[in-house]
Amino acid sequence: MARADGLKIGVVGATGVVGEILLRALERRRFPVGELRPFSSGRDPKARVRFRGKPIPAPGISEAALAACDLLFFVSSDEVSKARAERLARAGVWVIDDSSAFRMQANVPLVIPEVNAHALSAGARLIAGPNCTVTGAAVAGHPLHRAVGVRRVRMASYQAVSGAGREALRELYAQARSSAKNLEGGDLFPRLAARRSSALPRPIAFNIFPQVGSFRPGGECGEEIKVRDELRKIWGAPELAISATTVRVPVVRGHSLALWLETARPLSPARARALLKNKPGVRLWPEGEYPTPAEADGSDPVHVGRVRASGAHPNELSLWVVSDNLLKGAALNSVQIAELLLKKGWLRAR
Amino acid sequence: MARADGLKIGVVGATGVVGEILLRALERRRFPVGELRPFSSGRDPKARVRFRGKPIPAPGISEAALAACDLLFFVSSDEVSKARAERLARAGVWVIDDSSAFRMQANVPLVIPEVNAHALSAGARLIAGPNCTVTGAAVAGHPLHRAVGVRRVRMASYQAVSGAGREALRELYAQARSSAKNLEGGDLFPRLAARRSSALPRPIAFNIFPQVGSFRPGGECGEEIKVRDELRKIWGAPELAISATTVRVPVVRGHSLALWLETARPLSPARARALLKNKPGVRLWPEGEYPTPAEADGSDPVHVGRVRASGAHPNELSLWVVSDNLLKGAALNSVQIAELLLKKGWLRAR
Repeated sequence: MARADGLKIGVVGATGVVGEILLRALERRRFPVGELRPFSSGRDPKARVRFRGKPIPAPGISEAALAACDLLFFVSSDEVSKARAERLARAGVWVIDDSSAFRMQANVPLVIPEVNAHALSAGARLIAGPNCTVTGAAVAGHPLHRAVGVRRVRMASYQAVSGAGREALRELYAQARSSAKNLEGGDLFPRLAARRSSALPRPIAFNIFPQVGSFRPGGECGEEIKVRDELRKIWGAPELAISATTVRVPVVRGHSLALWLETARPLSPARARALLKNKPGVRLWPEGEYPTPAEADGSDPVHVGRVRASGAHPNELSLWVVSDNLLKGAALNSVQIAELLLKKGWLRAR
Repeated sequence: MARADGLKIGVVGATGVVGEILLRALERRRFPVGELRPFSSGRDPKARVRFRGKPIPAPGISEAALAACDLLFFVSSDEVSKARAERLARAGVWVIDDSSAFRMQANVPLVIPEVNAHALSAGARLIAGPNCTVTGAAVAGHPLHRAVGVRRVRMASYQAVSGAGREALRELYAQARSSAKNLEGGDLFPRLAARRSSALPRPIAFNIFPQVGSFRPGGECGEEIKVRDELRKIWGAPELAISATTVRVPVVRGHSLALWLETARPLSPARARALLKNKPGVRLWPEGEYPTPAEADGSDPVHVGRVRASGAHPNELSLWVVSDNLLKGAALNSVQIAELLLKKGWLRAR
């Protein structure tokens, strides 16, 4: 990768929750960053990030600075991506966008490297990474889909608060701290659930709520629609029938999924486990054990456990899937896409 | 109900979590208790409960004291119920058992009054109340099942810690208190999940785990099997296909369910809502709103929201259901059964 040593890598949203995780992933995976250009909203003139042990200023975006990069990671808002990503890609910059702005656009590959690396091409310089909730289902279900054809998916999610950003995390912590005072008295049913919330639609400490994103006609929320649309695109399965119920739970990192996969042809749990074992990006847990967010927090793979026959349909399996929403669900997946571009020789210093 | 005024009511397990809630339900619903006989394990000689403002000693069980009651509520362990309930019922005492000991026994009615009051009979003096997780599905799904026939059920649960008893609650509170210290520092990712647990299989503060009960051959845990067996019995639907994934979440009271009901005949969300509206025991939330455990905590009805078409199957609806696991899921349901026995004139002072 000698020719890549001089790569100029820009990170738009470098001071955000995912930005921070992305920088750590670039370091840890020894991505050949020649020069790092972190960008922030520009509201804080002293904004900076740490990279390879050094502080680096993270100024606001300037068109010239963005256009001078070889590769840009967008880990900011849909609006920021929408305003700039396409123009920069047309100008020759590789853009890996973690927002939902372009995921469903036909000319934009929506990529999880372990699942559909083939969707990448030398000419499509704007690449989208998927929603953090669909990732676990897409990675864990794909080997089974390839083997016997998944026809119908039911999915209930248990989503970490970090998926909603920094202010939501602060809100969880503040609610948990204030509830903790009520835990001292020895009362078996202390007053716990917070009464107010602002970053999230409902109180989250000692509570859960079935809403991620806003509701649409028909009664689904935004996240549930993303899961359906994106899974179909990533698997190349436009006919796939999917229903998701997406729920926020008081967990910091790690989205968990209860997943039912109804298949065209029968598949035993034993064969499903054999298909999942040693698959890149998957950690299959032994029978009788299972992952929880505590184990997935800070870990790269999609964790799969409780692979069993579903009692609801003869051709159906049930799985329990947990992945770190900030790593495989966001930052890590983007870095893996960049690694693929390097490997193919498409990403190089200009 | 004048003739019932002299009823001797025994509560086995009166000092437990459900026992306490049961006593409050008897008071609040003005159940005609002539004399209350609370029983405890007997380990604490000073054990007492409060009832109608007065402290009442709660000694260990004595066969004679139990047999002297007109009605006994068992809200203790399976073992305690197994050892005594059948013999007492044969001796003429009405026994309402909240344990799982007799639920699947053919000669024991398993009753949710709003769903299958018809299962009660004058001669069956031992009556079981269902598992706290199946209750929400049984109550919310029944009007739809009656109208168009539910054939397949998928259910993911989000279960409160109080369902696992007093020690589990104490463990949640201790873990939350110790985690709270790490929330002070302003770190965006403080160390939170506890490393040890004893009352529950895994740490629960800032974590979730997909296990309620112990695992059986085939990979289901005890709770998942109870949900299937009990729903079939309560609905009188032995062929019903069901798959549940039961998950513990860091909530104190209120079991939530993501539910998919595949039906024999099509049913629109609008008609399903019409069927659920004003049904006894159901609170239907308006479109665009939904219940959470914070609203269900301490409330009697089964809360139903997010009634919508499932994208997984043309004849399928998706629902979000929340109920207080200690009230409708346990104590309240038992008291409602007793009220029915009174109304029918079967329960009277002997």
